[in-house]
Amino acid sequence: MAELDVDTLLLSVGADLPWLIGYEAMPLERLTMFVCPREGVPTLVVPELEAPRVDAADGFTIRPWAEHEDPIAIVASLVGDGYRLAIGRQTWSRFLLQLQDVCGGSVFLDATTITGPLRAVKEADEIDALGRAAAAIDTVIMAMRERPFAGRTEADVAREIADRILEAGHERVNFTIVASGPNAASPHHEPGHRRIEVGDPVLVDIGGTLDGYCSDITRMFSVGPARPDLVEAYRVLVDAQEAGVRAGTVGTPCEQVDSAARQVIVDAGYGEYFVHRTGHGIGAEAHEDPYMVFGNDAPIVAGNAYSVEPGIYVPGEFGVRLEDIVIATDHGPQRLNHAPRDIAMVD
Amino acid sequence: MAELDVDTLLLSVGADLPWLIGYEAMPLERLTMFVCPREGVPTLVVPELEAPRVDAADGFTIRPWAEHEDPIAIVASLVGDGYRLAIGRQTWSRFLLQLQDVCGGSVFLDATTITGPLRAVKEADEIDALGRAAAAIDTVIMAMRERPFAGRTEADVAREIADRILEAGHERVNFTIVASGPNAASPHHEPGHRRIEVGDPVLVDIGGTLDGYCSDITRMFSVGPARPDLVEAYRVLVDAQEAGVRAGTVGTPCEQVDSAARQVIVDAGYGEYFVHRTGHGIGAEAHEDPYMVFGNDAPIVAGNAYSVEPGIYVPGEFGVRLEDIVIATDHGPQRLNHAPRDIAMVD
Repeated sequence: MAELDVDTLLLSVGADLPWLIGYEAMPLERLTMFVCPREGVPTLVVPELEAPRVDAADGFTIRPWAEHEDPIAIVASLVGDGYRLAIGRQTWSRFLLQLQDVCGGSVFLDATTITGPLRAVKEADEIDALGRAAAAIDTVIMAMRERPFAGRTEADVAREIADRILEAGHERVNFTIVASGPNAASPHHEPGHRRIEVGDPVLVDIGGTLDGYCSDITRMFSVGPARPDLVEAYRVLVDAQEAGVRAGTVGTPCEQVDSAARQVIVDAGYGEYFVHRTGHGIGAEAHEDPYMVFGNDAPIVAGNAYSVEPGIYVPGEFGVRLEDIVIATDHGPQRLNHAPRDIAMVD
Repeated sequence: MAELDVDTLLLSVGADLPWLIGYEAMPLERLTMFVCPREGVPTLVVPELEAPRVDAADGFTIRPWAEHEDPIAIVASLVGDGYRLAIGRQTWSRFLLQLQDVCGGSVFLDATTITGPLRAVKEADEIDALGRAAAAIDTVIMAMRERPFAGRTEADVAREIADRILEAGHERVNFTIVASGPNAASPHHEPGHRRIEVGDPVLVDIGGTLDGYCSDITRMFSVGPARPDLVEAYRVLVDAQEAGVRAGTVGTPCEQVDSAARQVIVDAGYGEYFVHRTGHGIGAEAHEDPYMVFGNDAPIVAGNAYSVEPGIYVPGEFGVRLEDIVIATDHGPQRLNHAPRDIAMVD
């Protein structure tokens, strides 16, 4: 904070707060805000009816506010006016506008400038937690390789997966993308009422949170033998993903993970069908720094954790994606996911 | 918008956007923003990889942005500079700060000043949808009255309820509060590993989204006969809730619903244990305008939909709450929930 000349850090909803103090703000209309001055004791301003949710107040004070109080005024009285304030990036605009109204002389910055670099370099216990989350999501994929898909709706398969994510030890399901047939050409497809048919490829991209850290994996399934054009594209994709993983050595600019994977896909003639970046950081949040994307020339640091997930999406035809979580170490990139990377043939 | 002198409405994550155009922005780091000028054709700025999720673009243009593009610059080019912009209240602060940087001559307002009053008065099809959601959540409560609680963890019961919320037709589970024994004294308790014992009261506050509209209900359960002090407090609560419901006639200030329920609780000597407002509006969002809270002197309007949910929370001892959704009509308040309001005795 001193380095960035920030006087107070203001955290509300989002992953910064649980990462820092172990308490997650409820994403509701009653403001929760952690007011953390550069020096001195921080204060958690929290709705009175949610104060019992705060397990322990280690190193900070709790200031519950009652229904007749104005939480913005409480925060303002704690920060004063005329300072540089770093506010959590997912904080509702409503609250930022209200704070700007009453702290008109202050400058507001994105708190990620402070928390992002800290969160992006995982410590040993964080890497352990990511490893446990990855092992748990691997078991979900393994279980689904033995399950029938034909005749079921995407939503039904997604619901089974959500149950299994919890059974595997996650405390939360973050997403369950089940995209069958042509739906897989939509990278962020919402599982719907489409019934999965024999011959369909099915893209499964799933993740949850376990002990506060996220899992995220993508694998392909096929009901019976996959169509030859998909198999051909997938073969390219496996090579592209491997190239992306291998490129992630300490000191390499993040964007080179993207370009390494992309080059394989471009060379095979599928370049126009790879419409997203190659990866995102992962930790307390499913998507966080560092991003493996064109334009991010920040070097990879030991302890970075990120996804490598190239895809090929042919509109109206099919989509394929393959994703593992990787940890950057001084001995090279290490995959955390070990579920088989072939197209799983299912009933 | 003309009335409030707003030039452009900017909607991102949150319920305003699906309420207006049927598309919900993903709560991720890639910006989705609906740019709606006072006159002319609106534009949905959406990440390229999410563009296939947009079913139909009725009356607006889609502007997908690729990974190498800057969505803030795209939005800025659409709105110009020096205008009055109303931004969705849940929009991430990060994006508001970036927009303020590039549109320094513009004034930003909370979009709820526009969407709130419109959303708070439900039309006939919206009331139908809320009625279907209420009927669905009633069936979940009815089913749980026949289920065993003793020996199970709160988390296990919460998971069963989540499954039943989906089975009842909701497309989304919004919350499943299962608070047993002394945990019920925490109004927003997170279901945990506490094992429910014989003699425990259990507070169940659950809701989901069905056809885009929310359900929300609270009922009390007891494993075997309830302790006398809880039964006594609950009797007061039933009267308080009834008073709150009856107070909700068209033209009455919202805060009088709160004071009517509160007075019953205060008169019975439990005033200090009712630590929250009496209710919140409900619709596309679980909590929205109008709020039944001290200080809200806006009159109730026919078509308002809101919860009436007083509670009594004795720290370390127990907590009780009773909640129904109510529609304000010209013929008086109508409850949408019809599940029995007694303490359900379960095994």
